[in-house]
Amino acid sequence: MASYKAPLREINFVLQDVLKVGRLAELDAYQEATPDTLSGLIEEAAKLIEEQLAPLNAVSDAQGCRLENGEVTVPDGFAEFWAMYRDAGWIGISQKEEYGGANLPYTLAKVLEEVLCSANVAFALYPGLTQGCFEALEASASDEIKQTYLPKLATGEWSGTMCITEPQAGSDVGAAKTKATPQDDGSFAIDGGKIFITSGEHRMADNIVHFVLARLPDSPPGVKGLSTFVVPKFLVNADGTLGARNGVTTQSIEHKMGINGSVTCVLQFDNAKGWIVGAPNQGIQNMFVMMNLARIMVGFQGLGQCELATQNAIRYALERKQGKAFNGKAEIVEHPDVRRMLLQMKATTEGARVLAYETAMYVDLARHHADPGVRETAQDWVDLNTPLVKAFCTDSAVELGSLAIQVYGGHGFIKEHGVEQIVRDSKILCLYEGTNGIQAMDLVRRKLMLHNGRLPGRFFAAVRADLASDGPQALTAPLKAALDALEGTTRWVQETYKSNPDDAAFGCCDYQRAFALTYLGWSWLRMVRAAEQSGDAGFAQAKRVTGEYFATRLLSQVPALLGNVRESAAPLMALDAELFAA
Amino acid sequence: MASYKAPLREINFVLQDVLKVGRLAELDAYQEATPDTLSGLIEEAAKLIEEQLAPLNAVSDAQGCRLENGEVTVPDGFAEFWAMYRDAGWIGISQKEEYGGANLPYTLAKVLEEVLCSANVAFALYPGLTQGCFEALEASASDEIKQTYLPKLATGEWSGTMCITEPQAGSDVGAAKTKATPQDDGSFAIDGGKIFITSGEHRMADNIVHFVLARLPDSPPGVKGLSTFVVPKFLVNADGTLGARNGVTTQSIEHKMGINGSVTCVLQFDNAKGWIVGAPNQGIQNMFVMMNLARIMVGFQGLGQCELATQNAIRYALERKQGKAFNGKAEIVEHPDVRRMLLQMKATTEGARVLAYETAMYVDLARHHADPGVRETAQDWVDLNTPLVKAFCTDSAVELGSLAIQVYGGHGFIKEHGVEQIVRDSKILCLYEGTNGIQAMDLVRRKLMLHNGRLPGRFFAAVRADLASDGPQALTAPLKAALDALEGTTRWVQETYKSNPDDAAFGCCDYQRAFALTYLGWSWLRMVRAAEQSGDAGFAQAKRVTGEYFATRLLSQVPALLGNVRESAAPLMALDAELFAA
Repeated sequence: MASYKAPLREINFVLQDVLKVGRLAELDAYQEATPDTLSGLIEEAAKLIEEQLAPLNAVSDAQGCRLENGEVTVPDGFAEFWAMYRDAGWIGISQKEEYGGANLPYTLAKVLEEVLCSANVAFALYPGLTQGCFEALEASASDEIKQTYLPKLATGEWSGTMCITEPQAGSDVGAAKTKATPQDDGSFAIDGGKIFITSGEHRMADNIVHFVLARLPDSPPGVKGLSTFVVPKFLVNADGTLGARNGVTTQSIEHKMGINGSVTCVLQFDNAKGWIVGAPNQGIQNMFVMMNLARIMVGFQGLGQCELATQNAIRYALERKQGKAFNGKAEIVEHPDVRRMLLQMKATTEGARVLAYETAMYVDLARHHADPGVRETAQDWVDLNTPLVKAFCTDSAVELGSLAIQVYGGHGFIKEHGVEQIVRDSKILCLYEGTNGIQAMDLVRRKLMLHNGRLPGRFFAAVRADLASDGPQALTAPLKAALDALEGTTRWVQETYKSNPDDAAFGCCDYQRAFALTYLGWSWLRMVRAAEQSGDAGFAQAKRVTGEYFATRLLSQVPALLGNVRESAAPLMALDAELFAA
Repeated sequence: MASYKAPLREINFVLQDVLKVGRLAELDAYQEATPDTLSGLIEEAAKLIEEQLAPLNAVSDAQGCRLENGEVTVPDGFAEFWAMYRDAGWIGISQKEEYGGANLPYTLAKVLEEVLCSANVAFALYPGLTQGCFEALEASASDEIKQTYLPKLATGEWSGTMCITEPQAGSDVGAAKTKATPQDDGSFAIDGGKIFITSGEHRMADNIVHFVLARLPDSPPGVKGLSTFVVPKFLVNADGTLGARNGVTTQSIEHKMGINGSVTCVLQFDNAKGWIVGAPNQGIQNMFVMMNLARIMVGFQGLGQCELATQNAIRYALERKQGKAFNGKAEIVEHPDVRRMLLQMKATTEGARVLAYETAMYVDLARHHADPGVRETAQDWVDLNTPLVKAFCTDSAVELGSLAIQVYGGHGFIKEHGVEQIVRDSKILCLYEGTNGIQAMDLVRRKLMLHNGRLPGRFFAAVRADLASDGPQALTAPLKAALDALEGTTRWVQETYKSNPDDAAFGCCDYQRAFALTYLGWSWLRMVRAAEQSGDAGFAQAKRVTGEYFATRLLSQVPALLGNVRESAAPLMALDAELFAA
């Protein structure tokens, strides 16, 4: 079975030494969130998660969810853990106190997301969607709706969903057909079918709050005619008690490659009572408030799975003996190709953690910094980093899961060792909340273009500033080469996109990967420097060696990847589609 | 559900137009194996496989195998299809007539392997191991053993296994402990436990023939003290009828990530009666006769899964509509990033097919050509290509399975669409018959060194000769650059390996991938040229475009990959292993 211990030292190193998380306690909103307080809270949550949730990972995968008579049964132990996690106050840890939260930084909530997702990513979706639903209502709903729903979501008494996808409307959200018909009492009758609804039905919480994308009568076609609604599983009486069951039924649940403990529902809304959230036809904007944060959340899910793969592969490689390496030792960690895989995993996971945590810290700064200029800068970073965090951490989760299997050899293919589950659980992360190709399109089509290229400009300037100081040549030379290539290709994409969007779009995934690798190269430079100050020679050496691996084996691929991006796609796009199948 | 149609046109194009399969009919052994005959046989087998086996793929995955009271039950339909496939004579299609085979080329058997593995790779392992056991006995066993076992294996009345791995002896075969104690009657008593025994127990065939690696008393330690034995499930009477059950029991069967229809057994040998195959302490050599062919077979399994992923993704992308691409069309094949994924899949699968088929043809030439010089050349190609076929086709199967899911979007994660199964079924291919890292070590440590570098030298000369003719610049320029880099790095590896094996070993997987990509670049050059002669403008255009994609997006990565290989691994290998877990 895969084991899990939260990497507390690494988490604290990144937060405190690399990213200076002390900055958060300087914000008026988070004066209590000192580095020590955060560290203590993470340790406390990690202990609960390691002891109570991680042991459920394999069994919940094997058991999955059941639908009987419209009711969903989740795996054994999930309801008990939900209650523990809820009662300890972790679900609303970063929500405002006025709505029943603990008013601690978003960054803390995301660190806990990583830990939760290493232990059991399928379970993590229940609180994850609950937080997402909270964020959507908080951003756009009326005060009355907020007062009714937010405290229940913050405490985890109720859970949340987002109901966006329909069979004909997956990546093309604007094709949604679910109807919302105004009623005399100010509510709306919601009618239509939604698919892929995570946590759509279960009985761990007293109520489920659906955040639903639907179309008002006579609204314009496409995304401009969508509105958002709150639709509870049980109607809520004026005194806050629960009333009748609403017209939302579970038609079926999906049988999936992984995250079997997370229920994925086909929901039917039949004359379900809902209330509009925000203004009519503003649904796509309201949805994107949640979606953008959800994309960061999914990145953290990927990071959690990267960590799980990495620490299990390392543990196995330190214990397992096969033959003799060139240095005479038998542990497989001494075999060069196994060590190469471990370094690939370590370099990816630790580098991605800096990208992810830094993005979360910028969310806090964008929300709460006193200086509007700092808030604007921070929001630029959030916008730029969101597709990188989402796509890179999730692609890496699948890749590292596959590498973990490879380190285990044939044993990795056997379920009881627990690493094959990582590949199965992680693959969905590359698909939901916008496929990773859609993230790449968001990057090249929107994030590079905003404010005349200001977002990538901030990144280039920050890395150049860090490169101005002396640093280990093994890192700085490949980082400089990657940065030069990335800046040049970024200009090319910014120009080409207007005249020939096919070219820029064709290379968007390679571009996105090259950008993320460059970001991680910068992360590694900062980590190596911070580790040198740590006073722990072994820790500093491990960071130096892993950083050197990253620079010489991964960062070194960036210029060639970007070469691909600048190749013309015209002949490839011109091929008659029917000839693909010939 | 995933669907499957054998790509007959593509198969015939590669065999006839690219590789000139007519050469096989010029061999004395295969005069009847004209291109038309081969083509007709492939079509006939493909029809049976498409109609009768492919529909079992999803259901056998869901059902898996069961062990009850020591007896294994395979999925519904497997026994019936085994009987059909056996009765049609396909199992022994390439075995010698004197042993009940049809004496047709190995190349034909491997093409059928591809088709079988697209349709149901789990099923394909039953005939696959049977052929492997046949090959091992044919190469090393006494005439008496051959007469007893080979005709039964060729006809598929009996099936075969190879029993190599033990819990402590996975990649390190020499650590095997199973004992073989000589008996007065000339037989041996076999005692020990074996794991990961594919097809180790089932009732589709009347008997199961185990080819077992074990250790004689007082034999030297390690691989030099291993011998091989034939151990039947049921003892065979002098008249060929079946006698008592032998001392081989199934302790348990594995629950795996995929290939659920293939039973994977933990076998216990308790005073089991066996007969030595070949000379004492020559077991590792005997095993490698089978292992080398098995590695090629596994490459074909990967090719079959690549084809399955590719054709389903293309079909889906031609049908599925989402939004509008820049050209105004809604089918997702028109979206640049989806088209990029399809071209990646097509370029990989079609290029890998040339590598795989060419390797199989060289097996036939090495066995049967009249000229010893041609046989030697052919065997060099087989030896060089074996790790490339095994590793590249299987790594690609996992990659393309994952891409197929990505093309399907969220639907790809749902079991009923059938593409997630490709990832699960394919991952084992990267592990068994030597992990892909072990293939890479075989390549750099052995294949580059043999006969003073003669093997890669043949490859470089052949590609240079083809580059001497005019060709499409989009292919020839990147191919030349890749070849130059590969030749330079090959010399570096050949020299470095002696003085610093860690360095060469650390980069072996990147080197192996770079070599395979260069091989596929050469394949694409030959395919594009052959397609231009086909008289079918659409087919030629598709090949040109796909070849251009391969050259500009994949071949273009070779020099940077090889740059990685030449980086020193010394500081990475020097890191104290304990610091990995810090």
